[in-house]
Amino acid sequence: MRLVQFCHRGGEGVVRVGVEQAEGQGVIDLKAFDPSMPSTMRQFLEMGQKGMDCAKRALSSGQHVVERSDIRLLSPVTGPEKVVCVGMNYKDHCLEQNAPIPEEPIIFSKFPSTITGPSDDIILPEESQEVDWEVELAFVIGRKGKHIKEEEALSYVAGFTVANDVSAREWQMKRNGKQWLLGKTFDTFCPLGPALVTTAALKDVHNLGIRCLVNGAAVQDSNTNQMIFRTEKLIAWVSQFVTICPGDVFLTGTPPGVGVFRNPPVYLKVMIQ
Amino acid sequence: MRLVQFCHRGGEGVVRVGVEQAEGQGVIDLKAFDPSMPSTMRQFLEMGQKGMDCAKRALSSGQHVVERSDIRLLSPVTGPEKVVCVGMNYKDHCLEQNAPIPEEPIIFSKFPSTITGPSDDIILPEESQEVDWEVELAFVIGRKGKHIKEEEALSYVAGFTVANDVSAREWQMKRNGKQWLLGKTFDTFCPLGPALVTTAALKDVHNLGIRCLVNGAAVQDSNTNQMIFRTEKLIAWVSQFVTICPGDVFLTGTPPGVGVFRNPPVYLKVMIQ
Repeated sequence: MRLVQFCHRGGEGVVRVGVEQAEGQGVIDLKAFDPSMPSTMRQFLEMGQKGMDCAKRALSSGQHVVERSDIRLLSPVTGPEKVVCVGMNYKDHCLEQNAPIPEEPIIFSKFPSTITGPSDDIILPEESQEVDWEVELAFVIGRKGKHIKEEEALSYVAGFTVANDVSAREWQMKRNGKQWLLGKTFDTFCPLGPALVTTAALKDVHNLGIRCLVNGAAVQDSNTNQMIFRTEKLIAWVSQFVTICPGDVFLTGTPPGVGVFRNPPVYLKVMIQ
Repeated sequence: MRLVQFCHRGGEGVVRVGVEQAEGQGVIDLKAFDPSMPSTMRQFLEMGQKGMDCAKRALSSGQHVVERSDIRLLSPVTGPEKVVCVGMNYKDHCLEQNAPIPEEPIIFSKFPSTITGPSDDIILPEESQEVDWEVELAFVIGRKGKHIKEEEALSYVAGFTVANDVSAREWQMKRNGKQWLLGKTFDTFCPLGPALVTTAALKDVHNLGIRCLVNGAAVQDSNTNQMIFRTEKLIAWVSQFVTICPGDVFLTGTPPGVGVFRNPPVYLKVMIQ
């Protein structure tokens, strides 16, 4: 299934959980199908299997379908407890910055306030002249756990989506005592979505093309088979430290092709409309 | 006023917002006073002045008072969007680690899952042998804002409380690519409270004694007048990057006396009961 969050046009501010009939097709409004269903993905995921079963029935019903032109897609998850990020998790991305391949995952975070919709603007802050892209495979946690074993880790994932770990490089790399947080956490620095694709709907999440386009040109183009630490390992690793819970978002690191390591460096600019 | 979150004994899991009659005295159950009031501090703060006015009336009423023996205090805030932390914000703490006095605030974060009640146990993780204390002045945001001026910053604060920025030093300083997050973010690594003391109830928040006791002995003993970057500056700084919102928790840095810089270093141990 392809789960989404959306607003009805004209009903901005009222969040709905939906199921896409297919990529880019009509969306079934879960709350219209079953008024007892919650309005946010986080609450939906907290329901566990019961919510997923309802979404399946809604999809099969073919009822309460809303046209794409009548809705605005939001990020598939908003307001998670955590946005967990992984640094230097593609070999070629380590090579392009002359950094050693890490022996353990490098974990940092973005505040949930960075999350924005898949088609929303990234707001270019006046405080940075070095705003860069980082396309990433993301996954969202479906159930609570701590000290999770790799063998069981995938059962904690509700599904996968795409993120952009937008980064203000001078703040990440040169200022703030070299703690990455500020450079990673300007408002709107985490476009997410469009859909949360449930794990069962994916054949092999570690063999997917992953691309970033800037003004139509592919600036990153790799495959998730290049990841150093995979989903299962990341869940096992992070859950040593923290209890993961439904709605938590993981960004799994970016492939090569970011702007800062180009010669000369290339950064995002204000879009001229 | 002294605002708290609590559970009635026997009603564990049901959170209530309350007002202390005085430090350590009876607590007025806000929802008993006015059933339209919300159950969590974050929702209460989102109500703004209307919530505060109701709390004042509840305090004046002297009704719906619950005895301390009948409740368990929780952290005054749970589930905030952000826990914003400041590193090296006391001069003497910089000196004890031979670090230069920072020219700009150094900002990092803990996940909200670190927050635990003021009298709850800190769970010593097997993954660390170097768990250390850091007492800190904390404040909680009362209204939403971005790009806030220092002159107006205090009006964004709902109140102040006390935090312990518990830190696993090997994870903070030697591992995880020297990104501090993991060492700071084990579950229960942010005891908070007991009360959120509203700004109006404090004469001068930057002239308060601040102490940490371990087994009854004072290991940190300083004054908030030693802070390098004060509340107003921290709000102005952080709000350049992110929209702050009601419930956000700021930890303002620790004074000297932490365990890791003692000779030999001293760390927390499992409590023998």
